[in-house]
Amino acid sequence: MKPLSPSRLYLALLHYPVKNKDGDIIASAITNLDLHDIARAGRTYGVGAYYVITPLFDQQELAGKIVSHWQEGVGAQFNPDRREALDLIRVRAYLSDAVAEIRKATGMPVHIVATSAADDPKRITFLDFRRMLEMTDRSYLLVFGTAWGLTGEFMESVDHVLVPIRGKTGYNHLSVRSAAAIILDRISGEQEIL
Amino acid sequence: MKPLSPSRLYLALLHYPVKNKDGDIIASAITNLDLHDIARAGRTYGVGAYYVITPLFDQQELAGKIVSHWQEGVGAQFNPDRREALDLIRVRAYLSDAVAEIRKATGMPVHIVATSAADDPKRITFLDFRRMLEMTDRSYLLVFGTAWGLTGEFMESVDHVLVPIRGKTGYNHLSVRSAAAIILDRISGEQEIL
Repeated sequence: MKPLSPSRLYLALLHYPVKNKDGDIIASAITNLDLHDIARAGRTYGVGAYYVITPLFDQQELAGKIVSHWQEGVGAQFNPDRREALDLIRVRAYLSDAVAEIRKATGMPVHIVATSAADDPKRITFLDFRRMLEMTDRSYLLVFGTAWGLTGEFMESVDHVLVPIRGKTGYNHLSVRSAAAIILDRISGEQEIL
Repeated sequence: MKPLSPSRLYLALLHYPVKNKDGDIIASAITNLDLHDIARAGRTYGVGAYYVITPLFDQQELAGKIVSHWQEGVGAQFNPDRREALDLIRVRAYLSDAVAEIRKATGMPVHIVATSAADDPKRITFLDFRRMLEMTDRSYLLVFGTAWGLTGEFMESVDHVLVPIRGKTGYNHLSVRSAAAIILDRISGEQEIL
């Protein structure tokens, strides 16, 4: 595994603590394509690393197997582009592990930005975040939830919450894979996308 | 299944003809999350329908089973939002079936717009396409490829080709699920996304 590259922007996908359909706090299962799709989008938009967070040992093992298949196994020969994306992945037990690692690699404070499909008093817009990423004295860890999303307690603990994506309808049930792709494009994509 | 709703924009995911890694023409396999993610993004951005195109009978059956699980099975009770998205899906053998169906539902010509990670002489920008979608005398069928992408012969047959998504790096290997989400956001998302 390569050393962590200093960057303004890091991603994390949280599998615990997250909510289930009834609002209970659970640990969700690793989804193969969450690893692939968000790593490929992260690589496309130049993030420093993509943290896959789960405290469950068997789930850490599963994530590690998926990644190493494409890094060292037959997958690496078959598809080197995929390896390049999955090289961004770090499987860690807790978000605090990721924060400590980024702080150490960059020598700068790490601000946590949560994403949500709901509105939040601490919200920042996509433009706010784009401008914040130009500041050179800090890094940002952008956190996505799995299952039915990040918990209220977690949302209270973060520095900022990104506004929800509004499409063209009232429907706001994008997959985390789609939401991550759209958010990366809005905050790090071409300035003149049109 | 509900009748097709008249709209400016329809989506299609092509499983044949597409290229494999060596450039040979193949029929690719249905991927469960291609159905879910692109249907959810399509519903978020208000597309008229999402065509899943495969001439292989067993693959049509598989796609039909996935969709009906969420429309009629236990999935429909568990997650009604998902059903609402998957209601957009139409499984058809050929793209020409989709074109004929849209023409019949809308009473207007259907222009085909292909997507590609490569550049093309027939390219239109995201802004071009956003403006074209305001025209009221036609519909557009936006086509995504699976596997290693749409064939050269297919690209020559279409009306327009959308410019590739450029991220922040030279890496352009987004999943079709991520590419579809970003493209829908660029052509149908909030005008003032920032």
